[in-house]
Amino acid sequence: MKSAPESAPARLRQLVGQGVAVIDTPALVVDLDAMQRNLQRMADYAQAHGMRLRPHAKMHKSANLSLRQMQAGAVGVCVQKTSEAEALAAAGVPDIYISNEVIAPAKLARVATLARTLNAHNGRLAIAVDHLQGVEALAQALGAGENLIDVFVELDVGQRRCGVAEPANVLPLAQAITRHPALRLAGLQAYNGRAQHLRSVAERRTALDEVIARVREARRVVEAAGLALPLVTGAGSGTFGLEATSGVFGELQAGSYLFMDADYARNDTDPDQPAFEHALFVKTQVMSVSTNHVVVDAGHKSHAIESGLPRVHGEALEATSCNDEHTTLRATGGVPLPALGSTLWLIPGHCDPTVNLHDWLVGVRGGLQAGTVTELIRVDARGFLD
Amino acid sequence: MKSAPESAPARLRQLVGQGVAVIDTPALVVDLDAMQRNLQRMADYAQAHGMRLRPHAKMHKSANLSLRQMQAGAVGVCVQKTSEAEALAAAGVPDIYISNEVIAPAKLARVATLARTLNAHNGRLAIAVDHLQGVEALAQALGAGENLIDVFVELDVGQRRCGVAEPANVLPLAQAITRHPALRLAGLQAYNGRAQHLRSVAERRTALDEVIARVREARRVVEAAGLALPLVTGAGSGTFGLEATSGVFGELQAGSYLFMDADYARNDTDPDQPAFEHALFVKTQVMSVSTNHVVVDAGHKSHAIESGLPRVHGEALEATSCNDEHTTLRATGGVPLPALGSTLWLIPGHCDPTVNLHDWLVGVRGGLQAGTVTELIRVDARGFLD
Repeated sequence: MKSAPESAPARLRQLVGQGVAVIDTPALVVDLDAMQRNLQRMADYAQAHGMRLRPHAKMHKSANLSLRQMQAGAVGVCVQKTSEAEALAAAGVPDIYISNEVIAPAKLARVATLARTLNAHNGRLAIAVDHLQGVEALAQALGAGENLIDVFVELDVGQRRCGVAEPANVLPLAQAITRHPALRLAGLQAYNGRAQHLRSVAERRTALDEVIARVREARRVVEAAGLALPLVTGAGSGTFGLEATSGVFGELQAGSYLFMDADYARNDTDPDQPAFEHALFVKTQVMSVSTNHVVVDAGHKSHAIESGLPRVHGEALEATSCNDEHTTLRATGGVPLPALGSTLWLIPGHCDPTVNLHDWLVGVRGGLQAGTVTELIRVDARGFLD
Repeated sequence: MKSAPESAPARLRQLVGQGVAVIDTPALVVDLDAMQRNLQRMADYAQAHGMRLRPHAKMHKSANLSLRQMQAGAVGVCVQKTSEAEALAAAGVPDIYISNEVIAPAKLARVATLARTLNAHNGRLAIAVDHLQGVEALAQALGAGENLIDVFVELDVGQRRCGVAEPANVLPLAQAITRHPALRLAGLQAYNGRAQHLRSVAERRTALDEVIARVREARRVVEAAGLALPLVTGAGSGTFGLEATSGVFGELQAGSYLFMDADYARNDTDPDQPAFEHALFVKTQVMSVSTNHVVVDAGHKSHAIESGLPRVHGEALEATSCNDEHTTLRATGGVPLPALGSTLWLIPGHCDPTVNLHDWLVGVRGGLQAGTVTELIRVDARGFLD
């Protein structure tokens, strides 16, 4: 929870219009040309497959980027946190799905306020539940009124994290939702985050077989009781081609495709999914040189490493360790090490928590070598945790 | 680089004076009583051993905590980044050592400005170098003037990261520093970060044997050439007792002792060092329950996991996985799982990058169960990377 600065610091503002070389290090830089190609590629894919696209904004936490995705056809965005939804709504994003459970009465009161605010502006709020207690607390927070919020029942489809453990147990939650006029039973939340990062296509297909079988079973049980689950929503950047062709999913929630990170790049390519380009980089400088390694001035306070160390863009160098403010690199293939002061570009291991370390993204057009800073993109929900 | 908000958001401000129960989750909470005991314990230890104490403020990034440490006897603080030094100086910290190399001319110009500003206010700035090119660039940035900044030569003492690789190579850097009137040769920077987290006391003693031997050799070479290294500075919370009794170190840079994290707690206790208490916690809520696990509402966007998963304070629960916004826990020893909505307190794996995820620390006195929020502590240099 924080108050985000409304405008960028002067040192960043003065970069706009200047060449890439003047960006001081470390800085989080977006190749806007590559990002735009990724954005359009996913929009085209969703349209071609008759799928709604609701990208996950927990990745970029930016209203600006949410609205660009919606302009290209996305129906809205997902977030994980109430405060993220509040921040994006305040910055003009009209259709937001908190694809996660909220239990605390104090936060549910904020959810209720936000739902009414969005409804009053022709927008919409949705949320997930996985427990009867959560349904009742949500209904109590919303109070009187009809059809105020869309509610998805989350089913555990293999990640063993949140969600109803058994497909048959979706039914009592669906029934509970329909007993409250303020709540609209919107469908099923079915996302397996672990499946996104299985390296082989075969492993991902096997994981998705379980996802799809569990979704079909939940739908069968609910429909047998005379209720409908209008929409099944889920999917990430590693598997969305499997959800899109499953015949049961209606909406894709992928987020990382917009920036692509080193972890997703370690997946084997699925020929049935469009390919995406790296669009997010940490600009760094070599600050120390030794006989067999160099050290750059960006550590894991600049780029998240919980999903693996960063790659070095376009260089025969590999990261061997990373500390708070340093990343150590060695040469691969016997090439000479870069000189003290050299610029290097890291491809972060995981884009979501990397973006969350920064208040502003430095947007570049014309490439990382000769490009120009054209805009600064605010990370509106940076550090919004609650 | 960011503009930190000057005052805390209203939702945080209204917590002050209220009981711990009203803190919404997740939130980063400091047990101020435990912190104060840690602070005093280290100050007493340094004084008893005749050591200067210069705690590393890269851990808390807070001017308020820096000044509390100085009030208890610390001579100043260390930081790793120019922007951290600027932020702490702007908030009133008078004596700051950038214990790291700075190469970029744009940043060295800021270093020079800050050095002059602190000198003009009876304060002092120091910096580390590990390359002749760095010495020359620093001298050029400082320009005319005498004794404007303290300069430490960094020696690699076993971490194989930054620092001069061989003790003998400290001499040419020391000589280069003395050729520039603006620079004062202050001594030797000798820190082995890796040694801090070796689990057994024996491993840490072996690592420090190398540190101390390399420091002695560097000093021998420099003194043989007629120069002096007035101060050897280094040490972290895992080994400071070894530096303090080495006979060669004059200053301790430990930082984590103030908060203590789960990673340091995994070290075997060194009977020659005072023990510290956990003082930093992420307050969380159980947001989802399943047959064999529960999920809390704080993931690695709330607490850093690159040095290991968090511990659960005072409960027979262990973290089995952690995602951006979720941590999954299971029971140890067959106790029942906590109920939906329960409050749990996580001890972060690594305090430095955890604090860097938050703009404010919620300070509590009277314990985590029945205590009261007494103050909010600003993380002045949160996200200051350059």
